[in-house]
Amino acid sequence: MRATVMRDKRLVVDEVAEPVPQAGEVLVSTVACGICGSDLHALEHIEEFTRFASTTGSGLDPHKDVVMGHEFCAEVLDFGPSTQRRVKPGDLVCSVPTLIRGGAPITVGYSNDVNGGYAERMVLSEPLLVPVPNGLSAEHAALTEPMAVGWHAVAKAAISEAEVPLVIGCGPVGLAVISALKVQGVSPVVAADYSAGRRKLAETLGADVVINPAEHSPYDSWRDAARASAQGERAEVNPLTGERLLPPGVFFECVGVPGVIDQMMVGAERGCRFVVVGVCMESDPIRPLLGISKELSLQFVLAYTPEEFALTLEHIAEGRMPVAPLITGEVGLDGVAQAFRDLGNPDQHAKILVKPTLSN
Amino acid sequence: MRATVMRDKRLVVDEVAEPVPQAGEVLVSTVACGICGSDLHALEHIEEFTRFASTTGSGLDPHKDVVMGHEFCAEVLDFGPSTQRRVKPGDLVCSVPTLIRGGAPITVGYSNDVNGGYAERMVLSEPLLVPVPNGLSAEHAALTEPMAVGWHAVAKAAISEAEVPLVIGCGPVGLAVISALKVQGVSPVVAADYSAGRRKLAETLGADVVINPAEHSPYDSWRDAARASAQGERAEVNPLTGERLLPPGVFFECVGVPGVIDQMMVGAERGCRFVVVGVCMESDPIRPLLGISKELSLQFVLAYTPEEFALTLEHIAEGRMPVAPLITGEVGLDGVAQAFRDLGNPDQHAKILVKPTLSN
Repeated sequence: MRATVMRDKRLVVDEVAEPVPQAGEVLVSTVACGICGSDLHALEHIEEFTRFASTTGSGLDPHKDVVMGHEFCAEVLDFGPSTQRRVKPGDLVCSVPTLIRGGAPITVGYSNDVNGGYAERMVLSEPLLVPVPNGLSAEHAALTEPMAVGWHAVAKAAISEAEVPLVIGCGPVGLAVISALKVQGVSPVVAADYSAGRRKLAETLGADVVINPAEHSPYDSWRDAARASAQGERAEVNPLTGERLLPPGVFFECVGVPGVIDQMMVGAERGCRFVVVGVCMESDPIRPLLGISKELSLQFVLAYTPEEFALTLEHIAEGRMPVAPLITGEVGLDGVAQAFRDLGNPDQHAKILVKPTLSN
Repeated sequence: MRATVMRDKRLVVDEVAEPVPQAGEVLVSTVACGICGSDLHALEHIEEFTRFASTTGSGLDPHKDVVMGHEFCAEVLDFGPSTQRRVKPGDLVCSVPTLIRGGAPITVGYSNDVNGGYAERMVLSEPLLVPVPNGLSAEHAALTEPMAVGWHAVAKAAISEAEVPLVIGCGPVGLAVISALKVQGVSPVVAADYSAGRRKLAETLGADVVINPAEHSPYDSWRDAARASAQGERAEVNPLTGERLLPPGVFFECVGVPGVIDQMMVGAERGCRFVVVGVCMESDPIRPLLGISKELSLQFVLAYTPEEFALTLEHIAEGRMPVAPLITGEVGLDGVAQAFRDLGNPDQHAKILVKPTLSN
């Protein structure tokens, strides 16, 4: 079958071995698969990425072929041995990008052993399949994975009524966080991005205050919003000085570039909680004194549970998470390499879907 | 009066202005005042320290005299105007090292305006005074401040029954954390330090497993202790693979040197919570990927509330926090400079008390 293969730090279209479903596995054809920022990272920084993969249990060899793609919606084709067959051929399904083979997890999309969604067909673990509800398009269902990242980050934040969130970075991760916050009824949501296109998307997804950091400090804007939100009576008081304190902030780091966490530590008020969702592949200098003097906390988050993944698909199907505005392009397997380059322009693109049946 | 003054990055004994209690303030004579690691930091890195002080609201000018000392027990001498006089001359008192003057807080011991405990006399805010319970020596009461740091760190950790703590670094901060954990009935407590003297103190204060990192990995030892503690039935299970997980860890960073947080991130298991108590004055490179891949969290902590401070004094007075083993030396004002040097040897010293009435 045809696939877009990461080989020697480049993306090439080639014929690869047809996947064969083993016990408990299902053969599917890829209908739509989103290109993730992590895939761009992987192509650019394969050595660091391989070390990362090794910490999560994937033994990824950067010198061997990898077919990436972990944000997919697929159509059931056939079944391996020992399958329950609760879904039937033709059904659309999503899955967390994990294949359980021989009791061990394989990360679909970052493996030398099984291919991800930048290929005509894949194998998936039957118990992890989530059927796409009737009427939801495969394109929208393919957004389940990135939106689940935001849903999980917001769930881990366990944001209270008094807390006002600030989302730093409105790429797909930040947009997913904004959407999850709005589904949870959080208001106001403050968000910041240098790109006008992304700020527009942040507004579309429901952010209440959207800031261009080149013009205004996101932290000052957050303070204004927090002060307005507290309306006096929710404000805590410093026990020593009687000074009124701002309601606590929950800052979502959705950039993943060195220096951003430290900047946020400078901008934060005392007691602020950070949720680090952006995947920074490099060493990142922070000043612990800033954290100590303000008693900040940092929660790093990764992925989602299977339950959160299924719930996110439901939110999308029910229209609670509007994903259509996020899809800014569609390409066939031959267009993946160019799409990776195009995604470098944040004003033009948010999510590009790979559809192996397209000819471009 | 006489004081040990930080002047031009050196400690000199000199005559300084007699402190005069203003409205709501009390004049006291310093009986005993501990030398804190932060004071050593301040002397060595005064520029960084000044920037730190500015983030906490103290406008410290490194080019002007500072009389440090914020871990004190003192005897009441006289009262300023508008005082309630609930304590009387001759009473021993402690206080959080904050003076509220004109509604604004001044950090006692890191101020150009009021002197700390390395001086014969001080002024303190009357509402913040905590009387030393009958029978407790001023020397032991002077340990309230550093022990309250540990108490606060453990309180912020809100450690659950399933969680097993690991204390990295057994200087005064780590020892205070160990002591607070034992007062709270936590078991087992795993602790690590390169110094044999400090490991001995950690055992004396109740640590159950004490590790020399030069010989064993503290993280492997923690894993052994956590596995033994979980005894099977408390272990959580990975929902995807069915693999048994270790009970979560709470790691206390009590070193405050660049690189330690990153090391701990390498050593930690998934879901581990870090409490950062050690005050690192420098920029500290971390690898966010480590935090993300394990969903770690970091809580930075500072100081304590007035309530925690008073409770800590009670724990010491009631014998629940044994502080006597921590006191490894006593000096007069002339001996402070040498004591700062002596504290560089962790095998020989934990806490040295300054007693202005001593002649050495």
